[in-house]
Amino acid sequence: MSLLTVGTVAFDDIQTPFGHAEKAIGGAATYIALAASYLAKDIRLVSVIGDDFPKKVLQNMTDRGIDQQGLQVKEGEKSFFWAGKYHNDMNSRDTLDTQLNVLADFDPVLPDTYKQSDYVMLGNLTPAVQLRVIEQLSTPPRFLAMDTMNFWMDSSMDELLEVIKKVDALIINDEEARQLSGEYSLVKAAAKIHKLGPRFLIIKKGEHGALLFEGEHIFFAPALPLAEVFDPTGAGDTFAGGFMGYLASTDDISFENLKRAIIYGSAMASFCVEKFSIERLLELDDAKIKKRIGRFVKLVNFSGLEYDL
Amino acid sequence: MSLLTVGTVAFDDIQTPFGHAEKAIGGAATYIALAASYLAKDIRLVSVIGDDFPKKVLQNMTDRGIDQQGLQVKEGEKSFFWAGKYHNDMNSRDTLDTQLNVLADFDPVLPDTYKQSDYVMLGNLTPAVQLRVIEQLSTPPRFLAMDTMNFWMDSSMDELLEVIKKVDALIINDEEARQLSGEYSLVKAAAKIHKLGPRFLIIKKGEHGALLFEGEHIFFAPALPLAEVFDPTGAGDTFAGGFMGYLASTDDISFENLKRAIIYGSAMASFCVEKFSIERLLELDDAKIKKRIGRFVKLVNFSGLEYDL
Repeated sequence: MSLLTVGTVAFDDIQTPFGHAEKAIGGAATYIALAASYLAKDIRLVSVIGDDFPKKVLQNMTDRGIDQQGLQVKEGEKSFFWAGKYHNDMNSRDTLDTQLNVLADFDPVLPDTYKQSDYVMLGNLTPAVQLRVIEQLSTPPRFLAMDTMNFWMDSSMDELLEVIKKVDALIINDEEARQLSGEYSLVKAAAKIHKLGPRFLIIKKGEHGALLFEGEHIFFAPALPLAEVFDPTGAGDTFAGGFMGYLASTDDISFENLKRAIIYGSAMASFCVEKFSIERLLELDDAKIKKRIGRFVKLVNFSGLEYDL
Repeated sequence: MSLLTVGTVAFDDIQTPFGHAEKAIGGAATYIALAASYLAKDIRLVSVIGDDFPKKVLQNMTDRGIDQQGLQVKEGEKSFFWAGKYHNDMNSRDTLDTQLNVLADFDPVLPDTYKQSDYVMLGNLTPAVQLRVIEQLSTPPRFLAMDTMNFWMDSSMDELLEVIKKVDALIINDEEARQLSGEYSLVKAAAKIHKLGPRFLIIKKGEHGALLFEGEHIFFAPALPLAEVFDPTGAGDTFAGGFMGYLASTDDISFENLKRAIIYGSAMASFCVEKFSIERLLELDDAKIKKRIGRFVKLVNFSGLEYDL
């Protein structure tokens, strides 16, 4: 099945306790598409870059089967740029700089061949841009998911709610779920967010794992405990990419299959943080991924208990 | 198998966003013994109280099969008292008052019948007192576990290390594991703590679940996502009580069985936080517990993924 990914393709300047990466490759759509490319085949990219973005990285994406007809390249302009510094615990970060550049007046235009896409992942972007993408889809996708962030809740709540109403799944972090719902308890937050429209809610808790909600049903997947977290940048997007890639490749949106997709998302995210930027996402293969899934199975698997359902 | 529990039996003054409980029943050994009493039969209590402690609660414990020959009652003295206030997120708290009272010169004396105990849980106490208990055991128990806290790392590290060296399992929270090891990564912390002696390390992460380490083996159990956390006091001790109670009742200290014990600990802790103090721990039964275990199974269970181990 085809997977349309929409989001930023950008430069990051990242400082962690392990070092400083200047002009590192970043962007939500970059991570989403690369992660998904290990699972799904027909991946389509809608984004915008300046002419400063390395051709080599675009070639890497092409090599991984990511179609770039929907990627606009603005001559004489600069790509989106974000600079951030992680605190020592790697769980929080400060944004040092944000330069919108080409993103400032981004008008996402879907190539005709993208207008029928089976699976759609809207990375974090202005809600108006996310909405423009949805409006161009000629048939409703089988599964439409979106990410967003606190910033849009503060600045464009009405438009954001309009997008949220249209998606099958909202994929956000715990802080965002709390802000969106006004509830501290994630169980209560989920109940409120379901009422905004999405059948599924996925709450990412970083090193504390991820929760999947569908009404009363809850599934939890841990993050893999790692000795070294090198760079958490893009882990959330990589999670979404693994999740959507697995769904697109299996074409099954039952709760049972979404659970498996969550495990895939968690596995891909666990790779992402092991190196700076997208480095780790360029060197994976099926064998490494199957082994990583095995580590998740071992991590949470138990048997032999008596229980009632 | 018999289970010896050592720790405080005390009064708590608890403030949460839901209310204020004055002179609530608390104490590590209270929670440990009550939680374990739903799983194991021969439970023995070593602690000290003043004559102000309610006879009714002692009767509750007797009714639940908890032997109190090792419980010293000091006439004319007051029981240990702790007062704390939880922040709005319920994940952190301030200690407002601590009155040692009878605990100040507590000398734990094991009745002869306790000296051969199969399973032993040393709740958080002065390391010197924990050591005194170990020294009185006439035969090494099948499984010896302990809890401790940051305070003892600051004030009595040498004695604490002496106790840690002797136990099979150390059960502490993430903050304590980080302080003890000097490592932020819990994987690295576990490797260092193993070198201090304990074959097993259990790291409690509150609402983020618990990790079990044995060398390279890691198991993770989530906390149950709850709509309402009423009072987190005693959740960690209840976890330890459920864990040790399950081990004592099954008498199997393999990693596979410790996993099941962790699930039982998590299930018992999920009950504990639903009401103030020990209230919820007095009204459980096998059916409720089996149903709760079922919720954990549903929460983490997935199947149908291909993987390599």
